[in-house]
Amino acid sequence: MTESLQAPYQTLEEHFARLGHLEDALGFLHWDASVMMPDGAAQARGEQLATLTEMHHGLLSDPRVGEWLAAVNTAALDPWQAANVAEMRRARAHAVAVPGDLVAALSRASTTCEHAWRKARPAADFGLVRPYMETVLSLVREVAQAKAEALGVTPYDALLDEYEPGGSIARIQPLFDDLEAFLPDFIAAVIDRQGAEPPAPAGPFPADAQQVLARRLMEAVGFDFAHGRLDTSAHPFCGGTPDDVRITTRYDEADFAQAIMGVLHETGHGLYERGLPSAWRSQPVGKARGMSIHESQSLLMEMQACRSREFLTFAAPVMAEAFGGTGPEWDADALYRRAIRVERGFIRVDADEVTYPAHVILRTKLERAMIDGDLEVADLPGAWNEGFRKLLGVKVPNDRLGCLQDIHWFDGAWGYFPTYTLGAMTAAQLFAAAKDAVPEIPARIAVGDFSPLVAWLRENVHSKASSLSTDELLTQATGKPLDAAVFKAHLKRRYLGD
Amino acid sequence: MTESLQAPYQTLEEHFARLGHLEDALGFLHWDASVMMPDGAAQARGEQLATLTEMHHGLLSDPRVGEWLAAVNTAALDPWQAANVAEMRRARAHAVAVPGDLVAALSRASTTCEHAWRKARPAADFGLVRPYMETVLSLVREVAQAKAEALGVTPYDALLDEYEPGGSIARIQPLFDDLEAFLPDFIAAVIDRQGAEPPAPAGPFPADAQQVLARRLMEAVGFDFAHGRLDTSAHPFCGGTPDDVRITTRYDEADFAQAIMGVLHETGHGLYERGLPSAWRSQPVGKARGMSIHESQSLLMEMQACRSREFLTFAAPVMAEAFGGTGPEWDADALYRRAIRVERGFIRVDADEVTYPAHVILRTKLERAMIDGDLEVADLPGAWNEGFRKLLGVKVPNDRLGCLQDIHWFDGAWGYFPTYTLGAMTAAQLFAAAKDAVPEIPARIAVGDFSPLVAWLRENVHSKASSLSTDELLTQATGKPLDAAVFKAHLKRRYLGD
Repeated sequence: MTESLQAPYQTLEEHFARLGHLEDALGFLHWDASVMMPDGAAQARGEQLATLTEMHHGLLSDPRVGEWLAAVNTAALDPWQAANVAEMRRARAHAVAVPGDLVAALSRASTTCEHAWRKARPAADFGLVRPYMETVLSLVREVAQAKAEALGVTPYDALLDEYEPGGSIARIQPLFDDLEAFLPDFIAAVIDRQGAEPPAPAGPFPADAQQVLARRLMEAVGFDFAHGRLDTSAHPFCGGTPDDVRITTRYDEADFAQAIMGVLHETGHGLYERGLPSAWRSQPVGKARGMSIHESQSLLMEMQACRSREFLTFAAPVMAEAFGGTGPEWDADALYRRAIRVERGFIRVDADEVTYPAHVILRTKLERAMIDGDLEVADLPGAWNEGFRKLLGVKVPNDRLGCLQDIHWFDGAWGYFPTYTLGAMTAAQLFAAAKDAVPEIPARIAVGDFSPLVAWLRENVHSKASSLSTDELLTQATGKPLDAAVFKAHLKRRYLGD
Repeated sequence: MTESLQAPYQTLEEHFARLGHLEDALGFLHWDASVMMPDGAAQARGEQLATLTEMHHGLLSDPRVGEWLAAVNTAALDPWQAANVAEMRRARAHAVAVPGDLVAALSRASTTCEHAWRKARPAADFGLVRPYMETVLSLVREVAQAKAEALGVTPYDALLDEYEPGGSIARIQPLFDDLEAFLPDFIAAVIDRQGAEPPAPAGPFPADAQQVLARRLMEAVGFDFAHGRLDTSAHPFCGGTPDDVRITTRYDEADFAQAIMGVLHETGHGLYERGLPSAWRSQPVGKARGMSIHESQSLLMEMQACRSREFLTFAAPVMAEAFGGTGPEWDADALYRRAIRVERGFIRVDADEVTYPAHVILRTKLERAMIDGDLEVADLPGAWNEGFRKLLGVKVPNDRLGCLQDIHWFDGAWGYFPTYTLGAMTAAQLFAAAKDAVPEIPARIAVGDFSPLVAWLRENVHSKASSLSTDELLTQATGKPLDAAVFKAHLKRRYLGD
């Protein structure tokens, strides 16, 4: 009502604040559905989410937003305001690029396909889901084409842009090619060198005790429970908002390390959210930069900081005390060697940091080929198994352990996979830069003090939000854009002692 | 977009379904704020709620809704559809009656006043909150006046209508006058007769064990955990939606009866929500009829069904087992006599069913006088204490135990109080009719089987939703409109053995 009385920029900020609050509300309804909601409420929750999502789309694609964006005087804006307008344009471009009936068709097809996948995966029967996946892929290709035209990029890059703003295969492929050439021999050398597995601490490890330990370590890392929670869900995730970070995990009473390392991973995500600049809450520029930076924060915390000799020097006695453990299997060195154990496994989510990129490189190659029309769904299992053998040197025994393992493609999430490995590489580069800038970081981690590390991340990553591009952020923080050499050097140092 | 192609009624149903989903989402955000949310997130949650509330108001007051309501052909509708349209009109009338800036001013004044009240109450210092309450009352009077003009009723009735659709002081006052004349002598007679308090079971009663017991009794009563939860919060309530009923309680380890009876009370609310007709989910006609019927369902369960000799015959051994209790204080008779103990207390929420109406009658009288301009805020403490002495025969020692005890007036909720006692009277009348229709109900409760009672409530109350007025519903279910004689007969039978 008041937009005519104020500058278009101010009107846009008010409009996008409402969008941000609606996104926050949707986030909590999703969190609740995963953590609290009884089974019988699934359909009703689906309707609540659909209505709020539709209202969100309506607000974003409102023609007045286009008029305000056209009228805004960019020259009069400060850099953060200008970046905010750029993010508004990007969000709106994604929203208006795709016709509403295509969005709805893909949403329905994904739901159907995901249901089929939930039966096909345990049965290891790709045929059960193949026709549904073909429908999803066909619609995803249409969406990619529509977004490609709107954004002026290739279809695959248009999908990628949703998760990794400004990302492109032209930028990613050389990095992945570098890793692809490096990994097979490196994996063989690591496995050859690491010797026998250290003895495992003997369980059971009661879920209650694991939770107490998880909270203690979260606090050590810097998680603020006045602005967040830890709960239990089937699939661990970090949800909520910067002022209310909701982390979840699951507990395996035979193996506490899985939950603890998972919680530390999600805590990395949570610290990023919490560290976003409060002055820009609910504005597009105040949000996390993208999935590769987000994943870099979780992997920096889990893989770089916490699967380290220093962290386990601090954590080993805390872990032993939590479960009343005694004996050499509770020594920091034994726990560290177990934390960095490398294995040629079939399942991505269980993979160590050395083999993980191979899983991602394969998926990226296959999804690009499917989007580009160079690979048919019917040929996916064969292409998967052949690619897996080449990269990891083992034969996939069935599709449950192969191309049926991940939900992404069946649920309509295409162009997401590369961000996992971009995140791992970014994590290595940021952690190296942090240690260069603040050499005491490892020694402080060894006594359970994460504050120098978190302070560096706050200043160089979290507080930047979306005011810089991913490349700009990384270059300002580390002196150069993403470079596979830093990640490889980390792997060689940790796993081959080079 | 499609409204021109279909009947206005269909368009209205679609529009109000969206409103219903938005209300559901708001409900879960409120539940989360009370049960899950960390303290630091209060401000951000406030912004999410404000945005969704504003969007709800925008959808409801959209001029197109008025056009569709004007265009709908009521003669072509079936009775439920016609009742649905009537409820839509009522909801819209409330939404458009009050100018937006007045709504916002009252919301801000209530927040400020509530904060002042949170300091004034423990300090027993009415002066700390008096100026803020004066502002709130002044704005509430304006709202009442605006709604009175829109609805064609008196200002107080216009406020009442939000909680008790179609309710009026003309209907309520004779019922309350009847009780007001009855209560003072009756309370004296009951206290005179009841003798010494039976010995209390000895605690402590661990919160975990209380929760297990509460869940067991909820299941016995008929609560469906596939469509609901029990959690802990500072102030017990029943939230959520018909498909996902969220009940909360709090545990006092010195006294398990408080939590258990509170849970049974909220379970009565929850069964009502769960029993609303699924064919009318999210439509105005499919919602609970109003606060007096809602409160009748909780009080029927707590006061009529569960503070009974029959219920305690079933529950006493279950309670004893839950806490490993032995001895005569765990006998059904002893627990029953404690459950119906009457005392002249100062605090409404702790009151028994005999003295409770006196608390409500006093508040109704005072808030009417304030709305009508016959009582100034400055004179409230004196009027309260004088009224309390007349009704309950005791002198209020300070305002913490007097006019500062309830949040309602300070938070802007005026016209709500009468529904508590209307609910208690309605509960007595419905329970008497249920037992007339299905004489085995008490005997079945005595063996822990609530199914005949719940079946009768489902058919005669829950499934009616808002398709009937409160009076019609009660008349169809019990053969007559609300009648104080039934409630008085219940009290005389239970407390004087008449």
